Amino acid sequence: MRDLKDVRRDINAIDHEILKLFLKRMKCAEEVSDYKMEHGGQVLVPSRETELMNTMLQDIPDELKLEYSSLLRTTTRVSRKHQYARMLEAEPQRLQLDLHPRNNDPKTVYYGGLPASYADIAAKDLFPHAQRIPQNSWEDVFHAVLDGKADIGVVPVENSTAGTVNEVYDLLEQYGLYITHSHIKRIRHCIAACKGASFDTIKEVHSHPQALRQCQQYIKQHNLTPVEESNTAVAAHAIAQSGDLTRAAICSEAAARLYGLEILEDHVNDADFNQTRFIAVSRFLSTQEADTRVSLVLTLPHIVGSLYGALAVFADYGVNMTEIHSRPLRDMPWNYCFYIDFDGNLLRQDTRALIYQTMQECSYVRILGSYSVTQDSEVKA
Amino acid sequence: MRDLKDVRRDINAIDHEILKLFLKRMKCAEEVSDYKMEHGGQVLVPSRETELMNTMLQDIPDELKLEYSSLLRTTTRVSRKHQYARMLEAEPQRLQLDLHPRNNDPKTVYYGGLPASYADIAAKDLFPHAQRIPQNSWEDVFHAVLDGKADIGVVPVENSTAGTVNEVYDLLEQYGLYITHSHIKRIRHCIAACKGASFDTIKEVHSHPQALRQCQQYIKQHNLTPVEESNTAVAAHAIAQSGDLTRAAICSEAAARLYGLEILEDHVNDADFNQTRFIAVSRFLSTQEADTRVSLVLTLPHIVGSLYGALAVFADYGVNMTEIHSRPLRDMPWNYCFYIDFDGNLLRQDTRALIYQTMQECSYVRILGSYSVTQDSEVKA
Repeated sequence: MRDLKDVRRDINAIDHEILKLFLKRMKCAEEVSDYKMEHGGQVLVPSRETELMNTMLQDIPDELKLEYSSLLRTTTRVSRKHQYARMLEAEPQRLQLDLHPRNNDPKTVYYGGLPASYADIAAKDLFPHAQRIPQNSWEDVFHAVLDGKADIGVVPVENSTAGTVNEVYDLLEQYGLYITHSHIKRIRHCIAACKGASFDTIKEVHSHPQALRQCQQYIKQHNLTPVEESNTAVAAHAIAQSGDLTRAAICSEAAARLYGLEILEDHVNDADFNQTRFIAVSRFLSTQEADTRVSLVLTLPHIVGSLYGALAVFADYGVNMTEIHSRPLRDMPWNYCFYIDFDGNLLRQDTRALIYQTMQECSYVRILGSYSVTQDSEVKA
Repeated sequence: MRDLKDVRRDINAIDHEILKLFLKRMKCAEEVSDYKMEHGGQVLVPSRETELMNTMLQDIPDELKLEYSSLLRTTTRVSRKHQYARMLEAEPQRLQLDLHPRNNDPKTVYYGGLPASYADIAAKDLFPHAQRIPQNSWEDVFHAVLDGKADIGVVPVENSTAGTVNEVYDLLEQYGLYITHSHIKRIRHCIAACKGASFDTIKEVHSHPQALRQCQQYIKQHNLTPVEESNTAVAAHAIAQSGDLTRAAICSEAAARLYGLEILEDHVNDADFNQTRFIAVSRFLSTQEADTRVSLVLTLPHIVGSLYGALAVFADYGVNMTEIHSRPLRDMPWNYCFYIDFDGNLLRQDTRALIYQTMQECSYVRILGSYSVTQDSEVKA
């Protein structure tokens, strides 16, 4: 048995040999891309890749077939990356994005919920000069933006404890809108009730299902019955209207104040850290130099390794994916679209090449937006 | 400019050269694994891989650094795969799974909902001889299984239109239970009301939020107000009790019959295809030869490419991932655990090697179960 050092010296030598061949192969890829720019033709030709794979696998012992397949797949994938970059540099018009100027100062902003809901506070943080108009549902917000009644809509997409807001992602795709801003809001729930109420009188606690879940332990400890409402501010408003001393609301401090409720206890979330990420949506795709994040949605065929193949492209570009999740396709049972957020900027060459490769190689890709992520500074805890 | 054929001939020749070197490198990997079996030591030594990467990248032009990084990462990853397989073959005890015999005929099965809810029907499909006990919540089901009051619990995990049931995944992890069966149930909602009610009298429609969403278009067309209830059967029961002719329920045909409601219209789901996948959960991890699927949960550090790295391992084994989704970690804000379902069997050598590699290379992995997926045959439409 040889010492590990000696084996590793061999490995390093082999890797240097492979590197030389790899660089030669990339030169060939350049010839291929030049040929295809001249004569036309897709970079990815599945039949050619399958043929190459089958030829190569003939000479490989069974126990290494899968290992070599991974290597060859990576080789051809990064070869395509190299070709796309070269083509896009020579012909930037290959990637056409319908980019509009960013509207950072909208006149009219619609949000889901009542005044003093967390969405309202987030909308105010983002657009302090805008007129903010409450809507009954997220769909109404999307509708107003699509119609042009609203310049911007503000809706939640993710909470640090409850996870993704699936419905909003569905609406993004359904209405074809674009994300222009993203804002992380610290959520600090209080429990509030009408004047005269106390922990001796209250039996029920009303709030949005997610807020109830975020305060689950607290609700159990105080032996309260949770009752679902469409929004935290709706709950506060309804309880204020009822005058009922047996009911309390879980809502923001601002909502309790606005509707004239008394705060029985502040900061009742189970997790000390509770944040919700909101997005601003517009009819237009826009970008600016300061943007740090890109979102897109893609559809993948339900075959072995297709998700991996799509993610591998992102890894090849060295980009950081900050979010990925799947949603079922309504019209194609058990087929999924994937929502991906990553660090990038649509004005940067590498981001553009990544998007170009993804668009060439996936059956459906839509850019959902380019934006930066801000965070509120209000940390009273 | 050379013809594509000539360039491709060169590429094929280069690939054959690379293959020879690859096979030599795998021989070296075998030496490394033998050394480590003899002297101890982890297969994955991040510092060694970083050092190798840095050394190699010195000689590469900038525009090919990322491309080569992907190639080297794949090379080292499949080299580790080869080593794990070799070690596990020599020393099968390296992977210890606490496997129990499968209980295919439980005495007591708990489910969330009322009799004639879809969960009840799924439980009956799976375990026709068991006593079925309804529970108010999914958490109560998990509690009863953990306590040993129930042999098995039946809960939904995914719907073909509404997507993943996040809460059930959270409970799986929280209660440390295991999936033993999976059953796909065709969901066919009807709209039902008390005797004497008609589309002229009904104003409200009560049901589970997911069922309401599945019938969204229908509800809009008939100008009904949706009202959320905890369960479709709960909605049917409540309306039967109320005798109120202005309210209808969206529920199963079985629930309408059980609670004495009249069916106003059958098959009111928007999507023609509407299925829910249920799982059976037990205290014990079990497997049997006929199982076709494995579920696991893993935690990933929030660094560039960590998700891709984990998925790449699955791709290296050529396994089909049927489901992946992330959930935020309650105690670690913006960190996620990933739930992955894939085609495999815990008795098979390649599945065991894949799990072994994942366990060695991820900070946290738990097998959530081994099972097969059955489908109900009731297709009346």
